[in-house]
Amino acid sequence: MAKDFSTREENYSQWYNDIVLKADLAENSAVRGCMIIKPYGYAIWEMIQTSLDKMFKDTGHSNAYFPLFIPKSFFSKEASHVAGFAKECAVVTHYRLKNDPNGKGIVVDEDAKLDEELIIRPTSETIIWDAYKKWIQSYRDLPILVNQWANVVRWEMRTRLFLRTTEFLWQEGHTAHATEKEAIEETNQMLRVYADFAENFLAIPVLRGTKSENEKFAGAIETYCIEALMQDGKALQCGTSHFLGQNFAKAFDVKFVNKENKKDYVWATSWGVSTRLMGALVMAHSDDKGLVIPPRLAPNQVVIVPIYKTDEQFDAVTQKAEEIKKSLQAKGIRVKIDSRRTYKPGWKFAEYEFKGVPVRLAIGPRDLENETVEIARRDTLEKAVYQLADLENKIPNLLENIQKNLFDKAVTFREENSHYVNTWDEFKDHIENKGGFIYAHWDGTAETEQKIKEETKATIRVIPLDNKKEEGKCVYSGNPSQQRVVFAKAY
Amino acid sequence: MAKDFSTREENYSQWYNDIVLKADLAENSAVRGCMIIKPYGYAIWEMIQTSLDKMFKDTGHSNAYFPLFIPKSFFSKEASHVAGFAKECAVVTHYRLKNDPNGKGIVVDEDAKLDEELIIRPTSETIIWDAYKKWIQSYRDLPILVNQWANVVRWEMRTRLFLRTTEFLWQEGHTAHATEKEAIEETNQMLRVYADFAENFLAIPVLRGTKSENEKFAGAIETYCIEALMQDGKALQCGTSHFLGQNFAKAFDVKFVNKENKKDYVWATSWGVSTRLMGALVMAHSDDKGLVIPPRLAPNQVVIVPIYKTDEQFDAVTQKAEEIKKSLQAKGIRVKIDSRRTYKPGWKFAEYEFKGVPVRLAIGPRDLENETVEIARRDTLEKAVYQLADLENKIPNLLENIQKNLFDKAVTFREENSHYVNTWDEFKDHIENKGGFIYAHWDGTAETEQKIKEETKATIRVIPLDNKKEEGKCVYSGNPSQQRVVFAKAY
Repeated sequence: MAKDFSTREENYSQWYNDIVLKADLAENSAVRGCMIIKPYGYAIWEMIQTSLDKMFKDTGHSNAYFPLFIPKSFFSKEASHVAGFAKECAVVTHYRLKNDPNGKGIVVDEDAKLDEELIIRPTSETIIWDAYKKWIQSYRDLPILVNQWANVVRWEMRTRLFLRTTEFLWQEGHTAHATEKEAIEETNQMLRVYADFAENFLAIPVLRGTKSENEKFAGAIETYCIEALMQDGKALQCGTSHFLGQNFAKAFDVKFVNKENKKDYVWATSWGVSTRLMGALVMAHSDDKGLVIPPRLAPNQVVIVPIYKTDEQFDAVTQKAEEIKKSLQAKGIRVKIDSRRTYKPGWKFAEYEFKGVPVRLAIGPRDLENETVEIARRDTLEKAVYQLADLENKIPNLLENIQKNLFDKAVTFREENSHYVNTWDEFKDHIENKGGFIYAHWDGTAETEQKIKEETKATIRVIPLDNKKEEGKCVYSGNPSQQRVVFAKAY
Repeated sequence: MAKDFSTREENYSQWYNDIVLKADLAENSAVRGCMIIKPYGYAIWEMIQTSLDKMFKDTGHSNAYFPLFIPKSFFSKEASHVAGFAKECAVVTHYRLKNDPNGKGIVVDEDAKLDEELIIRPTSETIIWDAYKKWIQSYRDLPILVNQWANVVRWEMRTRLFLRTTEFLWQEGHTAHATEKEAIEETNQMLRVYADFAENFLAIPVLRGTKSENEKFAGAIETYCIEALMQDGKALQCGTSHFLGQNFAKAFDVKFVNKENKKDYVWATSWGVSTRLMGALVMAHSDDKGLVIPPRLAPNQVVIVPIYKTDEQFDAVTQKAEEIKKSLQAKGIRVKIDSRRTYKPGWKFAEYEFKGVPVRLAIGPRDLENETVEIARRDTLEKAVYQLADLENKIPNLLENIQKNLFDKAVTFREENSHYVNTWDEFKDHIENKGGFIYAHWDGTAETEQKIKEETKATIRVIPLDNKKEEGKCVYSGNPSQQRVVFAKAY
């Protein structure tokens, strides 16, 4: 395991990049801004997918698949959507290459120009609502509760592995409802699902709330979001759930006959999380010794490293390791034995520590005699000796304990880095020198938000749900305000 | 359920399309040649994915994700690959749109032209081997056993839902090995995995073998395949596994230090199956009453339809249905209860018959009294009355029985439609009037194969593994031949 990586103190941004690269999560590809998700990183993403997919299905959703390409004209149909999404995107203009007449490789065949350009989907509202028009005639066809796991492309100028890439993987739910009330309930339900996932699987506490006008989704009436705080004091949006009203139904002329036998436009929601969550996972828990993965999302929750000198010892120890693996697997625990003889135990210890495996279990000849095993937990780096007979009961508890500890630590961190500020000087000082979530009064105007952003780079991350109403004065304009909102610099 | 659909006899191709559309599997989208996979179709694809993914992991493979885009120059690096893949593809030339200066929607921003065009991946050998160059230094880094689930694009002029679409979903395995022997073993192993899946999950018997030079993958040394016979006597390739030799390692300069401390090029394989398997599933088993899904891949294996007149009866019957569902789910069976009161039982019977649910279970007030339930199996359309107490034991057996029956029927069909022919007249007559697999002698030349294709549209589908050697004369040229190969018209 390479030991030449940055600490958070030295260079937070380099520390993040080092973990992603050296823990084999992802790397940059030959294509500008597009990443390769390596097997270890992808295994964590699969854990995220599986957990979320079950939550979506448990709440009545089905998966489907819609085209990668969107006809250019579709974007123009919803006015605010086009402004938000049609600009920085990948445009397909031709459908054929040919041999270069000058013999230099291959070139675009100008005879194969598309009549209408195709956009690689940056999000799929338009192509999906074009389809829903055919699916929906009557209230009996509603609700439609569909999700899609897909790749999307947004042409980003400055990219960072997982956090901002030109192509990324995500899921996008697109639902259609007969009433406004039902659509709003769906929007709220999916926000709860995301918050539940973030807190109970990613072990990241999140603020739940709505976005300001400036920050909401292009085409939404209201954008709900979950916001988390990273270790450098910057916020990271972990998921959004949009109430779209009848905007897309109107843009794509999707009407239905309601129970009163009258025609009405359909109500819509959309909601999504992406491979960005991998970035959140890395930044929320990892330390200067490398990645730390919450047990519920760890591809390997326990790794067993055999300690031995002779072949005889190797055989005896690995045999015992296999027994332990079986008994833990029977408890539903994901266990790996690393019995490679090409690497020394010390190297393996460093490797799994850097890769964030929650529990390491070392077993050698003396352990066999004593019927014990050495345990090391990744979160606290504490070691202990367990009796072999206790493993089956103690390891599941230990994993739950680690999961809880990571969450609790993140909650404490967030509490320590949430500040109520009342003056503009205080605000600037906090943003510049302390970071974190800043609870401040705001006059509710887009202009003020824009000016605060220009002067400090901080934006309104979230207007918390059930926010306490309190009279105050806008920290920037001094105009009256009824509530504090949460500002931060953000990824 | 719409009853106006074609029979196989009337119009096979229309029958296929009707089933795909009316069983809600897929439909055409607004984008030429790109399909929408609807929730019911996608649920079957998820069953296929889950089953295959487990088989890949059980044989040591991990998933990863590589970019959607491939730089144009990458294709030129492997000479035969470029000829096969670089022609009909989607080309991204620009990365931005802008408002039309004439106020008519949005247009491509000519200032945002890419220096090098990007191709939407038609297959990922090139972008992956470019990455492997960085991953592989020593024999210790090998083997690399990676698979990717992804969308790919091949610009097709004539498309058919699932069978041939411009965008489709697939998996592509890409492995790297230290020795030729190991790579060939991997190629063979994955062919076995595919054949196992086709026969034991899809319930479709397949011929295993190699492709002729004309038909092999562009860039492969040898292409192994599994070939199935559809009900109209045409062949459908269900999966391919390619031994790529050192072709891509040489094209992308991927060398490693072997155990003898010498540098050598890495050996490669690739293998894939796609949403085409959905087309195979539909065509292999369905009948004039609609779709027939093999139980192992059916999203719902059992559907329970309550029969009732009064509200009281409805409550009593659905309560019993819930009990049955629970007891069957405990046996690992996927059960759905359709208790919608907006549709009549007869409508539901037709619906689930058309959608191919393997077992339908109807329960009414008289059944409650008698402690019975009415069973209908989709494959044979036979009905029976089971005692409630027997369900837990009988339903799992019935499902296995249906799975086996579908496979056996398909084997019988294939046997009845496999023919040994020895003269050119016989060959032409069979191809034109009977279809099916034709076992005929061939002189081994690409020229002869090409001429046969031109005159009859038949191609060599497969040269079976462990093919019997027998002296003969080429059915077309009369030249000497050592073995029969399998000809057919193909999808």
